Amino acid sequence: MSSPAWFNDAREGYVSKGIGGRLSVGHRPALLVVDLAVGFTDDAWAPGCDLDNVVERTAELVRRARASGHPVIFTTIAFAADALEGHVWLAKMPGLRCMSEGSPAVAIDPRLGRLDSEPLIVKRAASAFAGTGLASLLATLRVDTLVITGATTSGCIRATVVDACTAGYPTLVPESCVGDRHQGPHEANLFDMNAKYADVVTFDRALALFDEASAEVEARA
Amino acid sequence: MSSPAWFNDAREGYVSKGIGGRLSVGHRPALLVVDLAVGFTDDAWAPGCDLDNVVERTAELVRRARASGHPVIFTTIAFAADALEGHVWLAKMPGLRCMSEGSPAVAIDPRLGRLDSEPLIVKRAASAFAGTGLASLLATLRVDTLVITGATTSGCIRATVVDACTAGYPTLVPESCVGDRHQGPHEANLFDMNAKYADVVTFDRALALFDEASAEVEARA
Amino acid sequence: MSSPAWFNDAREGYVSKGIGGRLSVGHRPALLVVDLAVGFTDDAWAPGCDLDNVVERTAELVRRARASGHPVIFTTIAFAADALEGHVWLAKMPGLRCMSEGSPAVAIDPRLGRLDSEPLIVKRAASAFAGTGLASLLATLRVDTLVITGATTSGCIRATVVDACTAGYPTLVPESCVGDRHQGPHEANLFDMNAKYADVVTFDRALALFDEASAEVEARA
Amino acid sequence: MSSPAWFNDAREGYVSKGIGGRLSVGHRPALLVVDLAVGFTDDAWAPGCDLDNVVERTAELVRRARASGHPVIFTTIAFAADALEGHVWLAKMPGLRCMSEGSPAVAIDPRLGRLDSEPLIVKRAASAFAGTGLASLLATLRVDTLVITGATTSGCIRATVVDACTAGYPTLVPESCVGDRHQGPHEANLFDMNAKYADVVTFDRALALFDEASAEVEARA
Repeated sequence: MSSPAWFNDAREGYVSKGIGGRLSVGHRPALLVVDLAVGFTDDAWAPGCDLDNVVERTAELVRRARASGHPVIFTTIAFAADALEGHVWLAKMPGLRCMSEGSPAVAIDPRLGRLDSEPLIVKRAASAFAGTGLASLLATLRVDTLVITGATTSGCIRATVVDACTAGYPTLVPESCVGDRHQGPHEANLFDMNAKYADVVTFDRALALFDEASAEVEARA
Repeated sequence: MSSPAWFNDAREGYVSKGIGGRLSVGHRPALLVVDLAVGFTDDAWAPGCDLDNVVERTAELVRRARASGHPVIFTTIAFAADALEGHVWLAKMPGLRCMSEGSPAVAIDPRLGRLDSEPLIVKRAASAFAGTGLASLLATLRVDTLVITGATTSGCIRATVVDACTAGYPTLVPESCVGDRHQGPHEANLFDMNAKYADVVTFDRALALFDEASAEVEARA
Repeated sequence: MSSPAWFNDAREGYVSKGIGGRLSVGHRPALLVVDLAVGFTDDAWAPGCDLDNVVERTAELVRRARASGHPVIFTTIAFAADALEGHVWLAKMPGLRCMSEGSPAVAIDPRLGRLDSEPLIVKRAASAFAGTGLASLLATLRVDTLVITGATTSGCIRATVVDACTAGYPTLVPESCVGDRHQGPHEANLFDMNAKYADVVTFDRALALFDEASAEVEARA
Repeated sequence: MSSPAWFNDAREGYVSKGIGGRLSVGHRPALLVVDLAVGFTDDAWAPGCDLDNVVERTAELVRRARASGHPVIFTTIAFAADALEGHVWLAKMPGLRCMSEGSPAVAIDPRLGRLDSEPLIVKRAASAFAGTGLASLLATLRVDTLVITGATTSGCIRATVVDACTAGYPTLVPESCVGDRHQGPHEANLFDMNAKYADVVTFDRALALFDEASAEVEARA
């Protein structure tokens, strides 16, 4: 990415401040696909934008995670008719009102081919951990590492990545698998996440994580 | 602030997407002062930077909130000796290790004059809500609105503001009362918060909120 | 209720230990109706038992809360097809498997006449606060007191009452509005809740709370 | 234990209702020692009672868990001077006020020989998960099973066991390692927990879990 001028200054400053370390990953990764629902991937809906690339790359990761026996978890947003839960968020982002229970906007983009057996977290907040059973699900699946993809980088990805860090899960964010409505917030949030909460990595690194973990599990068996 | 070029584009794009609404505030605000501890306000410590202005303006708000009978809540960071809680965050931000229980770095900056009777939330994560009793405290105090100040804009302020939105509290962020190590992340996070989670406001607007709420309570009595 | 012999001994012992205080209630109560879904109120379903009395009394409270302008919130249990969230609980209580998304067992008992505008919390754990947006909803509604009714006393009522205490909400449990499969656990859990977490009260006391709070609000207006 | 008459009836009824299943445990257990602080184990403090047996048996488990390389985690209660967090709980249990920051009552009973390197969760609620980083700690330690001991059975043990179930951790409660002020609530809560949330087991079963898990880890190495 063609970074704004301040990225280099801040990055150098951060090094001297002990900011921007790298994470050790585990052997039981899960792929968490955040909000690649029709309302986000189809520009015809208010919250939507062009995420074709993100969907395509994520679909590849989905197939690889599945093939190597690692869990794939999807999230979507669906507000209740009363719209009370998520009230403040909706006041700031009224465009999200179309993400309501029963609307076609909340369905996961069919290009991702979600299987019925793959968990779907329905949320009413930016973070996939907030007011959901995601933390419990990760403990049940004995996951120890997350790969997070989806949209938007400056919204639900950022919020979910911060909470994954807090919840104790080292997290990789493959850069080409997250997207946003505008390039500015996309880049600024990748910068923050990589400095403070997760490792922003290449698509290939994320692919390799699923393969390595799989090989290790097989070698042990 | 002298905004990057992309701010205007993104702002216009957001309007057409139903992003960037304004909040209605309540009559029982609390002031939440995030991480204005010595380790952040004194540049001699790794996580520190120049926050003199932020401390000075926040101290004014503290006095006004107190004078008008509204709660003031402080947060700091203090990791346990085992450093297990907050493990991933510390791997990304090893500079935070100095914020450990018993260190002078964790004390609230004396310029803020925190009273013993004012709650101090000790956290080991970016958000003041994560792994703490803050939500319970707000319910007990019957708070209905938050004013959030402190540091850093791109770290604990952003994380706390997102969680305040999720927790159901309309939140004001007075721009001159939050600060960061670099201007770039500071501005980009103000932009995101104002678009999606909280109202970024002037110092005077925040001052007025405490006065108005106070007047209303008195008028009712 | 005809208490077991140990109730008196324990109650006396508790007095000397500073256990069993009484709560101050507020002026903005909400009625929380826990799990009065068909799967619990109709004995034909595995988790069901005779709760006719509980449903009838709760329906009276629902009407009174509504009439006095206070929120009524319902909960039900609905596991996803993958049954991963709630996995440990289902291992202990396989009878709950019938409470699955789309089953008629998860519908709120029609005798309660739930309105579409009244929030329905869907949960996969004993407590109505766990993995749900209930805390956020209460903040949004500016509730300051809870009346909790439903089933079962030794299961979801107990778990929800403990979490309401933790969340900072004084709670009343009207004795005739909670029920269980067996009298022993019902009584033992009323004893514990009244000693440690909530006030177990008469039906009339709960009715009066909604009236008083309503009168107070009107007088202020 | 000499069970009340209703235990048998309820147990039989539960079988027909699909209640009272048994759990599968994992290979990475942790020992969670709840509230064996001086204020609970020394009868001179208001919340205290005779827990000598519980402390002695738990101390054995602590040594075995340590010897086999499994984590030992302690909890205590310590309210802040403002006593705002935990406000409702303290209104019900004013006897707990002695559990305040800095008081000798909050120290872990020295007979347990807690090491500085062993995490200490400080809580202000009944459950060890509520308003603490315990869930994050368990994820960081990659724990998959809990053994929970301490006091009191009808208070913090019950609340923590319910939350452990919700959090996705199969849990064993060794009967001789939990205790209470009175036998009635002790037995009734063991009954409920064993029916719905955890496996109540013998002391030897808990000991064996740490040995087995250790052997398995060694065999794999």
